[in-house]
Amino acid sequence: MPSTGRMFLQIPGPTNLPERVQRAMDMALINHRGEEFADLTKKILPRLKQVFRTEKGTPVLFPSSGTGAWESALVNTLSPGDGVLCIAIGEFSAGWGRLAKAHKYDVDVLELPWGSGVTEDAVHAKLAQDAGKKYKAVLTIHNETSTGVTTDVRAVRAALDRARHPALLMVDTVSGLACTDLRFDEWGIDVAVTGSQKGLLLPPGLGVLCVSEKALKAMESAQSPRYYFDWAPMIEKNRAGIFPYTPVTTLMYGLDTALDLLMEEGLERVFKRHHRLAEGVRRAVKAWGLKTVALQPQDASNVLTAVYLPEGYNADTLIARTENELNLALGAGLGPLAGRAFRIGHLGWMNELEVLATLSGVELGMKLLNVPFTLGSGVTAAQQWFLETHGK
Amino acid sequence: MPSTGRMFLQIPGPTNLPERVQRAMDMALINHRGEEFADLTKKILPRLKQVFRTEKGTPVLFPSSGTGAWESALVNTLSPGDGVLCIAIGEFSAGWGRLAKAHKYDVDVLELPWGSGVTEDAVHAKLAQDAGKKYKAVLTIHNETSTGVTTDVRAVRAALDRARHPALLMVDTVSGLACTDLRFDEWGIDVAVTGSQKGLLLPPGLGVLCVSEKALKAMESAQSPRYYFDWAPMIEKNRAGIFPYTPVTTLMYGLDTALDLLMEEGLERVFKRHHRLAEGVRRAVKAWGLKTVALQPQDASNVLTAVYLPEGYNADTLIARTENELNLALGAGLGPLAGRAFRIGHLGWMNELEVLATLSGVELGMKLLNVPFTLGSGVTAAQQWFLETHGK
Amino acid sequence: MPSTGRMFLQIPGPTNLPERVQRAMDMALINHRGEEFADLTKKILPRLKQVFRTEKGTPVLFPSSGTGAWESALVNTLSPGDGVLCIAIGEFSAGWGRLAKAHKYDVDVLELPWGSGVTEDAVHAKLAQDAGKKYKAVLTIHNETSTGVTTDVRAVRAALDRARHPALLMVDTVSGLACTDLRFDEWGIDVAVTGSQKGLLLPPGLGVLCVSEKALKAMESAQSPRYYFDWAPMIEKNRAGIFPYTPVTTLMYGLDTALDLLMEEGLERVFKRHHRLAEGVRRAVKAWGLKTVALQPQDASNVLTAVYLPEGYNADTLIARTENELNLALGAGLGPLAGRAFRIGHLGWMNELEVLATLSGVELGMKLLNVPFTLGSGVTAAQQWFLETHGK
Amino acid sequence: MPSTGRMFLQIPGPTNLPERVQRAMDMALINHRGEEFADLTKKILPRLKQVFRTEKGTPVLFPSSGTGAWESALVNTLSPGDGVLCIAIGEFSAGWGRLAKAHKYDVDVLELPWGSGVTEDAVHAKLAQDAGKKYKAVLTIHNETSTGVTTDVRAVRAALDRARHPALLMVDTVSGLACTDLRFDEWGIDVAVTGSQKGLLLPPGLGVLCVSEKALKAMESAQSPRYYFDWAPMIEKNRAGIFPYTPVTTLMYGLDTALDLLMEEGLERVFKRHHRLAEGVRRAVKAWGLKTVALQPQDASNVLTAVYLPEGYNADTLIARTENELNLALGAGLGPLAGRAFRIGHLGWMNELEVLATLSGVELGMKLLNVPFTLGSGVTAAQQWFLETHGK
Repeated sequence: MPSTGRMFLQIPGPTNLPERVQRAMDMALINHRGEEFADLTKKILPRLKQVFRTEKGTPVLFPSSGTGAWESALVNTLSPGDGVLCIAIGEFSAGWGRLAKAHKYDVDVLELPWGSGVTEDAVHAKLAQDAGKKYKAVLTIHNETSTGVTTDVRAVRAALDRARHPALLMVDTVSGLACTDLRFDEWGIDVAVTGSQKGLLLPPGLGVLCVSEKALKAMESAQSPRYYFDWAPMIEKNRAGIFPYTPVTTLMYGLDTALDLLMEEGLERVFKRHHRLAEGVRRAVKAWGLKTVALQPQDASNVLTAVYLPEGYNADTLIARTENELNLALGAGLGPLAGRAFRIGHLGWMNELEVLATLSGVELGMKLLNVPFTLGSGVTAAQQWFLETHGK
Repeated sequence: MPSTGRMFLQIPGPTNLPERVQRAMDMALINHRGEEFADLTKKILPRLKQVFRTEKGTPVLFPSSGTGAWESALVNTLSPGDGVLCIAIGEFSAGWGRLAKAHKYDVDVLELPWGSGVTEDAVHAKLAQDAGKKYKAVLTIHNETSTGVTTDVRAVRAALDRARHPALLMVDTVSGLACTDLRFDEWGIDVAVTGSQKGLLLPPGLGVLCVSEKALKAMESAQSPRYYFDWAPMIEKNRAGIFPYTPVTTLMYGLDTALDLLMEEGLERVFKRHHRLAEGVRRAVKAWGLKTVALQPQDASNVLTAVYLPEGYNADTLIARTENELNLALGAGLGPLAGRAFRIGHLGWMNELEVLATLSGVELGMKLLNVPFTLGSGVTAAQQWFLETHGK
Repeated sequence: MPSTGRMFLQIPGPTNLPERVQRAMDMALINHRGEEFADLTKKILPRLKQVFRTEKGTPVLFPSSGTGAWESALVNTLSPGDGVLCIAIGEFSAGWGRLAKAHKYDVDVLELPWGSGVTEDAVHAKLAQDAGKKYKAVLTIHNETSTGVTTDVRAVRAALDRARHPALLMVDTVSGLACTDLRFDEWGIDVAVTGSQKGLLLPPGLGVLCVSEKALKAMESAQSPRYYFDWAPMIEKNRAGIFPYTPVTTLMYGLDTALDLLMEEGLERVFKRHHRLAEGVRRAVKAWGLKTVALQPQDASNVLTAVYLPEGYNADTLIARTENELNLALGAGLGPLAGRAFRIGHLGWMNELEVLATLSGVELGMKLLNVPFTLGSGVTAAQQWFLETHGK
Repeated sequence: MPSTGRMFLQIPGPTNLPERVQRAMDMALINHRGEEFADLTKKILPRLKQVFRTEKGTPVLFPSSGTGAWESALVNTLSPGDGVLCIAIGEFSAGWGRLAKAHKYDVDVLELPWGSGVTEDAVHAKLAQDAGKKYKAVLTIHNETSTGVTTDVRAVRAALDRARHPALLMVDTVSGLACTDLRFDEWGIDVAVTGSQKGLLLPPGLGVLCVSEKALKAMESAQSPRYYFDWAPMIEKNRAGIFPYTPVTTLMYGLDTALDLLMEEGLERVFKRHHRLAEGVRRAVKAWGLKTVALQPQDASNVLTAVYLPEGYNADTLIARTENELNLALGAGLGPLAGRAFRIGHLGWMNELEVLATLSGVELGMKLLNVPFTLGSGVTAAQQWFLETHGK
């Protein structure tokens, strides 16, 4: 049957685009070496700094996905054979480590169970073993999209400080930035890495980094080969509002408008809204009698919620049916969670009714699979929470 | 607080536009006297006939709202002083009568209580009194948008036949066409009148009529002054795909695509979907313990549902709060229903999750007003119904 | 061969839309009875007054083409049988008279040769014959789109004043407004009538009027039947930013942005630009050795130029070939000019290069027809003019 | 003064987007791991092969600019220290060599004068010196965007064959593909590299490669570190229509439509059109008495024309003035041509009138700078050519 009405794209990114952003991108191309484009760049960069909450950091933009931004972080600051500590708590945090290995760094992985967060002690223990300070970089993820867990980045910083370890602190905030708080300067981050298609309210295609002075210093001696993802010509050309090679014009238009939207709402309110919507989803999951992949409540992500189906029920079937029969796109379980869990994205340009639609669709889907739970219980629990916190 | 996420436009029209339709209209204008435009017109008209379920009728399009199409129906077929019987069951059906009076026809109103449908007997009784056959036209409404009541147009036809009355049968199907079944030929309709902004999935701006051979015959002797809304030059120019004056180019682009969407889904499925979504809403209303304005279940509209709040609660406050605080636009009670009832539109490009989002938003809004009902009960009742009828 | 590249839509309207206007219209519909829409209306109306250059006039908007606005002007101010003087200088000015006849007014036509303008003396002579002041309205056209002639509206006003004639001065400025100067208050206009698809930079679908206090007074006693085009409920509802029936939401979005564009450029500069582009076209026509339909230079329109082909050459063939083979849409000769003349639109959102492209395309087309003239001569003459006046 | 009318974006890419492509990209995001997206990928890849004129080659897509595709070509097939021969005939061909150096290959540059093409003999002479076959790859550019010169890629292939040299033939066709003929299989190309923003009619953001079986074989032993630009996971995932990381959803929508447009016109006609438009520009340049940067007529590009201003006139001033005062964006002279030459792009979605508008704008700009030439001469020469070849 042809689908009618709106698709609810509730994967954990790319997200539903605001129509103001969509229309801003649907404009004629302009000369990317002309004045108008330079003005646009100069209007964007300072506001990106605000989103990263930095005064000293430098934003760098690449035509790439977030994976490209991962690569850029490493090849600009490291030399082949350099030690790297990767804190792996799920598919994406581990993935950055795999990329580091492919680039021939000496990668140690601090592997924590999927669903758990990161503690200062665990990181410190690992760093304490590195007497020779071979780690030049510690990679951690702000929000692990495979498990729905948010890392306490401050704890990682604290571990580095406690161990007096000089490694660069690199943070993947692909799905965290502009959804849940990140403080580049205050938390002592050296490289933060994100993509356009999550909290920045854009389609995929723009890799975004924020780089500290210490990271720029490291760049000077870093021997890894690089050209496409080289920061130096980017930063230099950006001063004049231009780029060393063709930038992604339409995403720049969109970014300008997305930053308007974020500033109009205010970052604090953006974070609060994400928390409120996320808590609605968590209350629903609890009402259903299901378990989240996130093991500890304090680690639960405000960006997405990964949910286990009871044994014997296939999450991939749930996802296929909600997408094909109910116009609801959910995220699949990745790696060890494949078939066992599904993921609900509640990030970006979202409101209560969209969350409630999503929850009601998950309920319909679970009933189609005969998953045992009380129909309506999740929606009602979320409604109850939204009422309790209405206008707050 | 700035609103985020999608607005749920659940007034009973204009409706949420399909993005394919939106983008089709967002195209450069073309020469409205050129070949390309003529081809477009010729592609649209035969499919419009299918939507009206007519072989013999002639569709006519005007740059106007549905109100303009009302006017066109009368001034092309009547002469000043002609008798008109208006069957009034709510704001809009009565409105057509007011328009007829303004145009100096001799209007009798068969006024039925708001919320009731139309019976053959009631119409027949009125027609039987018209021994001199002064009524040249009987005006009835297919779907009364103020009350959420659908007229059994066949009953009106039957009354005319029973009374052997030669009056033209004119049907306002502004909010009915392409939502709920209408059969122009089979039901013996002479003029059907609609607008673009409801089941035709377009923005407002296009008045659409379908005209029988009998109505065209009446046109020849009709003395009412007319120019803008004159059918004759329209029908003549339309043969070549053009228009006597500038047509609404972008709405024509959109109509072409909207007809594609309707044909892809199939009219029968469109009607079934509207019924299914509407029944979900009705079950919710029942679960809330509230009453619909529609008095009899068999008259309840599949297009919208008008709902009374309990005494002492102001429906306009509900509407203002859901719109401003929950991104949910509902329709206000009109005329005698002002403040007492609100209207939920469930027409056009809609699916289950959008209905459930709407119902959950109405529930939140009612709780904000302290209306007594069980939170979640309406959503759950609708979910239950959607499950029972899933895939059917 | 499929056409590539941009279509040059150089008919005298609808015109090439600014993309900012197009995207503004490509937005989700909102509740036309809600606050946001009311704010939009209230933002539009005062700026429309500026465009009409009026402080005392009242703008009124209808979902209609300009033809509907013609009808509205008459039915709100006149009674059947009232005398009307129509000053006919071409297809459209005569058309308004035909509409008046269809509405059963007593229409006299002051018929002037196609291509000529309107003189005070000619109008005065006609008015002077009307000793009984039977004319309740004088209809004149600001810019006659069939001939490319602009009327000196002040001359018509002067004729009325000289004759001490109390008739309402009604001006069709469908293709004049926001292209060439119009001063509603200063020139003593009572009703000005326009459409959205010319200087207002929008697609067709919105009929716009500006109405004087005297016209509103006339409305009170006017007996012509009216409902759809009735000013009274419009003006009353508009005070609160709403409309008596569904307005054309998307055109309202577009109008808001189009007014931004007009105000950003400034009306004086808009007029100057139209004059400069028009003069470029006129110099080209002269260089080609062809004649404009406009007989006197002082009457030549800044909106469009109608050009005679030499005897023996078919203008309709020219138009068909430029449209199908060169992506250039030109306007056809109307009425007595059919086949003899073609029309070049140079109105709206236009610049020098678009004019030069158009002229070069006309040249190619004429060469394809073997019209005798020097290839490149028109383009060069226009270039010369643009250089002489560059930056002025 | 605010600019009005359309901007003529006549830089040599990014190019003016077809509106069908723009609107196709302006659609809601879908799940990039779902069935609908997989179907889209599977619809795109075979048609991309047709554009590359290959049956055996494999297309690979990256979220990147063309520069990223350059990088991808090398890191997938080479090991650090491998010999690379770069044939440099301008800024971009030399740039690929610089990228190769940054990635620590042993790069020899065959440097030919800017403006000259590539001969079999020149390449053969260089290859003949490489007795040890240290060159693993020969880099050449299909169309050099800095000089407006097209390389005879067959000549490079012939040189390799004559020298019996096994190096991979890598071709930068960023600005050549889908503008001017390229035959991947027939010409024995191993890696062809392009970007989305030229002949593919899209905004920038998609790097596209086509890879031969021999190149895939080389991949197996290539030791250069790679992850983001790695072909292996791309090719493997693409089989199922998906991607190893988030693809650029909206550009994929656009590419689907752009391929429709290319197929509707037919590649042969696309090439013929580009030649015809280019020749119009060249005739204009000749009429102006100016010199193209391309030294030999047979090397002149059909994509863009680089033109020297006479000594004493600053091309950058010309460009700034046409952009700011005439809505015409031209390309600047790069490297040694800075200030001395300007570049006219005539690629992509273009027609005759757009070329004529561009030429007339260049003429106006040159007159503003007092460059000596006959006003109108270039436009007329191009018109003459277009007439001679009309419909051919």
